[in-house]
Parts: sequence; structure tokens; C-alpha cells
Amino acid sequence: MKEIKVGLLGLGTIGTGVAKLLMTNASLISAKVGARITLKKIADLDITTDRGITLTDGILTTNADELLTDPEISVVIELIGGYEPAKRFVLKAIENGKHVVTANKALLALHGEEIYKAAANKGVEVLFEAAVAGGIPVISAIRGNMAANNFSTIFGILNGTCNYILTRMTDEGADFAAVLKNAQELGYAEADPTFDIEGVDTAHKLALLVSLCFGTRVTFGDIHTEGISSLSSVDIKFARDFGYKIKLLAIGKRDGDRVEARVHPTMIPVNNPLADVNGAFNAIRFTGDFIGPVMFYGRGAGMDPTASAVVGDIIEISRNIMAGIGRRCAPLGYRDDAVANLALKPMGEIESKYYIRFSAVDRPGVLAKISGVLGSYNISIESMVQSARMAGEEVPIVIMTHEALESDVRKALDEIDTFDIIMRKSQLIRIEDNLE
Amino acid sequence: MKEIKVGLLGLGTIGTGVAKLLMTNASLISAKVGARITLKKIADLDITTDRGITLTDGILTTNADELLTDPEISVVIELIGGYEPAKRFVLKAIENGKHVVTANKALLALHGEEIYKAAANKGVEVLFEAAVAGGIPVISAIRGNMAANNFSTIFGILNGTCNYILTRMTDEGADFAAVLKNAQELGYAEADPTFDIEGVDTAHKLALLVSLCFGTRVTFGDIHTEGISSLSSVDIKFARDFGYKIKLLAIGKRDGDRVEARVHPTMIPVNNPLADVNGAFNAIRFTGDFIGPVMFYGRGAGMDPTASAVVGDIIEISRNIMAGIGRRCAPLGYRDDAVANLALKPMGEIESKYYIRFSAVDRPGVLAKISGVLGSYNISIESMVQSARMAGEEVPIVIMTHEALESDVRKALDEIDTFDIIMRKSQLIRIEDNLE
Repeated sequence: MKEIKVGLLGLGTIGTGVAKLLMTNASLISAKVGARITLKKIADLDITTDRGITLTDGILTTNADELLTDPEISVVIELIGGYEPAKRFVLKAIENGKHVVTANKALLALHGEEIYKAAANKGVEVLFEAAVAGGIPVISAIRGNMAANNFSTIFGILNGTCNYILTRMTDEGADFAAVLKNAQELGYAEADPTFDIEGVDTAHKLALLVSLCFGTRVTFGDIHTEGISSLSSVDIKFARDFGYKIKLLAIGKRDGDRVEARVHPTMIPVNNPLADVNGAFNAIRFTGDFIGPVMFYGRGAGMDPTASAVVGDIIEISRNIMAGIGRRCAPLGYRDDAVANLALKPMGEIESKYYIRFSAVDRPGVLAKISGVLGSYNISIESMVQSARMAGEEVPIVIMTHEALESDVRKALDEIDTFDIIMRKSQLIRIEDNLE
Repeated sequence: MKEIKVGLLGLGTIGTGVAKLLMTNASLISAKVGARITLKKIADLDITTDRGITLTDGILTTNADELLTDPEISVVIELIGGYEPAKRFVLKAIENGKHVVTANKALLALHGEEIYKAAANKGVEVLFEAAVAGGIPVISAIRGNMAANNFSTIFGILNGTCNYILTRMTDEGADFAAVLKNAQELGYAEADPTFDIEGVDTAHKLALLVSLCFGTRVTFGDIHTEGISSLSSVDIKFARDFGYKIKLLAIGKRDGDRVEARVHPTMIPVNNPLADVNGAFNAIRFTGDFIGPVMFYGRGAGMDPTASAVVGDIIEISRNIMAGIGRRCAPLGYRDDAVANLALKPMGEIESKYYIRFSAVDRPGVLAKISGVLGSYNISIESMVQSARMAGEEVPIVIMTHEALESDVRKALDEIDTFDIIMRKSQLIRIEDNLE
């Protein structure tokens, strides 16, 4: 039986999972590929720690070049993460004619174009199913069987840490800080959770999904990104009263020649399937012009599910090798010369429904003042809740608006927040009512 | 730009959708394939009815041979349905070296092996994403990115007509016959709904999923199949009281060297995502050894979603053609010589939890008699509900069992149903508690 040799950069959690999967299911994989896939070299700075798996003697090296220059290795798996040296290694692998499989969303969100161009020049594949939503095979589906569709929307719950925290805040009525601390103790959140809780990780993944679905380059830095750290249990309670749950949502929308791409806490109807995505699970919902709405759900992270996606990509490439071809499909699923440069719609121009919570002094005329300003900016109120009266004290006033222009809402809040009856910065959460 | 010519057999609803999609999104598809995909011939017995789309003059023919023998046509799309002449046409297309795309689950469930073998001999692809769950790209995912997994379970809601009827029975408390009649008036059910409501369509689809997930041949006739026509609104109400919804579920399980494959109404917990799959939507949940649980959700039928799947397959084949290769992957994702013949587990040997509704005369000692028989067959009771007492009249007694062996349950019911205190055949519905 033919042998296809692969090299692995990075023996962390995911890398260990990939090595384990290639060994555990070796015969299954051979039955599907018609070749034996062999892990020939693994490069990691730490080659002494026991990862709980048995590796062939001499397979480990601290020198990445050993596998980047090995002519027997056809596929390089990059699981180092971060920008450097991952980028340098990936480009060198491509330069040496090797196919690349990576889970590195940060790298692709920022340097994707350069890497895709290099791969096109060399006629090799760059696959990255594991970069978005762990094991869920959503990228393959967009590039593959759903490829005939013009997509109009993407809604994703893409960060397990955030979704775990929000689920517990919702179920327990607990506050953000307390849940985060406990999540860190339980290993569900990193010691430095900034990338997760501030939405950066979600924005990286959204950048990839937007590129794939809309066939466009995305300037990652232009994606509007808000995290969940400013959410309060009060907002989650009000959301429930209005029939919503709050999720950190990655939102992509096609609007003519422009694209919306934004990450922020979002209220979604409790009866939408995305509202039932709890804990560390991920889900992505798309709408295509022919397929209609479609949703994928599964484990969005972790050693085993992510390894499933990485090895799925290796199988894809191995089938090409067995068929005697190099590159079969460009990384984004579009011919390289067909990828567009659609402009990102500025945040001020998006339209949405809004939940706004004002912290006001309970005094006659407050509501008239607030609604007067909203009205002057063409923001119409769908419903309003003013909690129990406590004359002279701070009370929350919650307003749900009809569709309004973000810039108008911002201007109105800036104006209202200067009033002396307003005790603190108002809370604004966008609402997605139909998710189509 | 290179041109890839395809021929379409059958211009019914799906065929019309495929023609429409190929025309509407022609430039998008070219951008993804690098070739123009042209519909060169369409064969249908009826070439006069207006389908609401504009076709090139002379493209329509009543003679399938015109396209089966056309050397310019690389891909034949079979959307006739049924066994003959679909089978003859598919085999002839393969014999003539053409790739085949089909949505014909009945054909593949019964004659798949013969067709796959012919395709292997000729080195052509046979793709059938549209045969299961309409637009949802679940077959591509099993063959493709999820291929590294050993799957343990499949749970599918695969028939839109049944799910529509069950959703309305659940929401409205209505009876089966009334909802079916109304569904027929609204076009959600066929004039002869037997294939749908008796579970045959679901079993065809399950046969394909079991083959793909477990890499085995399945004898379609051996799949245990029960439909929804014997369900009563009483059962749906009791299910809700116990925290369940009733769905027509396709169930596939791997158990060592054997496979369970069965279709029947099933109680699933209300908080499982599958319980929220309503109306004409479909969903499939798998568990793989590395990916864990994963679920796909979307429109399971209809002109446009099904066309999305068919054209997705055409794109897949076209990318191969552009890469200069014929066949890249066998129909089931396994090398043809690696497909196994796993035995189907006889229904009597499955283990499940059961809901049993006895229609008994309300008389002292009835419960003792029933539970005595259950106990004698090692069936242990988890809970029991006996409705309001009406001495001497027929009352429902509902028993939820712990895990028990199907053959024991059958024997116990056969025995109990002969008692003169039992007024009619007892109702039995299987329960799936964890869906993993």
C-alpha cells in the first residue's frame, strides 16, 4: 500500500490529538484513502514532556526545518498558532511544494491572502477546517457541496469560552466576573481570557467565514468587535422577559456590493435553534439563495473534535495525491482571480433593532426626555419597561426599538448620557429577530 | 473558458430547480469551478408543460438516449426517481463513461451495490447528496471532512411530511387523520402518502446513511420500519407530560460487528436540539469517536434546497474534471474493496426504554396483573401513570420502562394483550434518552 508522509508542527493539545487520531484510526483512514498516512516528523520546542501517547522513536525534533525540507513529506500540519514563527513555517512549506493543513485562524485572518497566493503559485492546497468551530465541517461544506449558493447571512456562535460563560450567567443568574473566575478554575477559560471574552477569536473565525461565503478579502482590523465582559445579569434577565437569549454572535451579511461583518453580544429569540446552543458547543447558521437556512452544530474546540477536522483535511489532500493531482480547489473555494474586494459596511450604517438600558434617576419626566431624544433621531420605540418605582433613586429603564440606524442610536445615546438624570453609561445590545 | 456539459434526466420539480440554479448562479459557479457548466440536454416524457423557466431551444427531448450517448456530455443527472427506467439509464450513463449525480434514494438503497460496482469499473463518480435531507450537505461531510471518525450513532429526522404532521399534532393536539387530510390539501403530503407516513422514504435514506457511516452494505428490506399512522394525540400528550416529544426517527447504531438500523416513532427529550426540529425541516445527529456529537439542520426537501445539493455534486465532479481526473473518491467514501458486510441486528435483540400504553378496564388488580407479566420478562418499570379512575370503563395505563430487550417486551405485550381486561392492542413507543 502506498504511503503518504506528513509532518506535524506543534505538539500541543491539538497536535497530540492529531497524532492520536492518525494512530488510533489508521486502518479506517487507509480504507478511505487507499494509502497509509504516516506521521514522519513532529517538531516542537518541548520534546521531553509526556503527552500520554506513544510515538515512534526519533520522530520528535526541535528543528522545524527537518520536516519543512524533507522531500518525503507531502503535507505539513501547522498547529503552533499565533503569527510567528507559524507564518514563516507555512510559507516555507508551501515554497517547498508541500500541502498545508492548519488550524490557525489568527494567521489566516491576518495573512490569508499572502499564504493563498503562495499556495496558488506552487499549486498546493491550504486547508483549514479546524480553524473555525472545531470538528464541525462547515468550511468544507461552504467550499464544497453548498458552493452553488449566493449566501446572504452568517450567524455563528464560535467561541466556546464565551458561550459557556453566557450559558452559566443565563442559567444561574450569575454575574460575569464570578462565572469567569470559576470557568478559569475549571479550565473552560484561559488564565488570560482576553482573546476569547473580548471577541477577538470570534472575529478571526468570522473573517474566514465571510471570505468563504462571500468570496471576498476581509480586512480583519475593520471587523467591529465587542466582547461579553460588559454584560450584566440584569441584561440577561431583561432579555428573557422579552423572549430573548443573549449570545456572542458573529454576524456576516451580504448587502449588494458591501459586506457586514461584526461580533457583539446579540439578543436572539428563545425559540431559534441557535438559542439552544449551550455550554462549550458551537453552531453556525447560514442562509443561501437556494439552500435556504441551514445550521451546523457540534463541539467547537477540544483535542479530539479539532483533530477530526485536521485529519479530515489530511484525508482530502491524500485523496488528491492518490488521484495523481496536486491542487484541486483554491483555499476559499473560488478561483484565485475571482476573489473580490467587497467593502465592509461601516458600523454606523448598519440597521438593527436595539435593546437599550438606561440607568436613570426615578423622577417624573425622565421617560419623556429620553423618548424625546430617541424620536428626534428617528428611533421608534417598540416597547418599554420601567422597573418598580423608587422615587429619587437609580432605576433601569429598558427600551426595545424598532429597526434603526446605528449612527442615529449612537448619537441619541451620546446625547442622553450627558443628562444629569442619567447615572451611568447606557447599555446597548443589538437584537436579531429572524436570523435569515 | 472551458465548458463542462451536463445532461438532465427528468424535468419535474427538482429537475426544474437544477436547471434554474445552473442558469441563475452560472457566473458564481464558474468563479468556483473555473469552467462554464452548460445544460446541454434535458430528457423528459413531457416536453410541453411550461415549468416557468426559459430553456434554450432544442434542449428538450423525450429520448433519454440522446444524452446517454452524447459524447460531449460528461455528467448525467438522474432525477426521474423510482427503480425503472432510472436504473437502466444510470447504468447506461456509467457504461458510457459519464459521471452520475442522482437524488434517487430508493434506487440506491436497493441497487446501490450494483451501481457502485459499475462506476468503479468505469472510473466514474456517483454522487447523491440530494438523496438524503435535501440541501443539507450531510453525505459530503461523512465522505469528506468527518471521514476520520468511527461513527457510533446516527439519529435522523429525514421526512418532512412526517415531521410536519407530527409538529402539528404536537402543537394543536390534533389527531393524525385530520392533520394528514389538511396537509394533503396544503400540498405538504402526497395524494398517496404511504411512502412518507409509513416510514419507507426515511428507511431508504437511513440505508444510505448507515452505509456511509459504517462502511457497510445494508439490505434495505431488513430495516425495521414503522410509520406514524398509528400514533394518537393521547400518546403525544403523555409524551409531553414525561418531558418528551415524538419524532419519526431514523436510528443507526454500530454495535461491534453488527449494525442497528430502524425507523419508528421515538420519544426524545424536549431539551435535545432534535426536539426543536419542526415542520418540514430535517436534521441529522451523529456521534463519531473523535468529533463527538454533531448535528446538521436545514430544509429537507423542496425544489431549491434539493437543487443546491445536486448542483453541489456537479461542482464536485467539475472540479475533478478541471484537475484532469475521473474518479477521486468511491461513492461510500471507502475504497470499494473495504466496504464490509456487517450484519443487521435483529429487532428482537435491540435494547431500549419503552413507553407502553395499555387500554384496560378500570378494575382493582389490573396494574398488579400487568406489572407481574412485565416483571416475569425482566422488564423493570421506571414510572407509571393511571388516568382518572372510571370504575369499569376503559382507561389508559401508561408505563415507562427501564432498558429492556425488545423480544422480552414483545412477548410480555403479546401475553398481556390476551387478558380480557385489555380492551385493544397496547401501544408501544421506543424512547431514546441521550442520543449519543
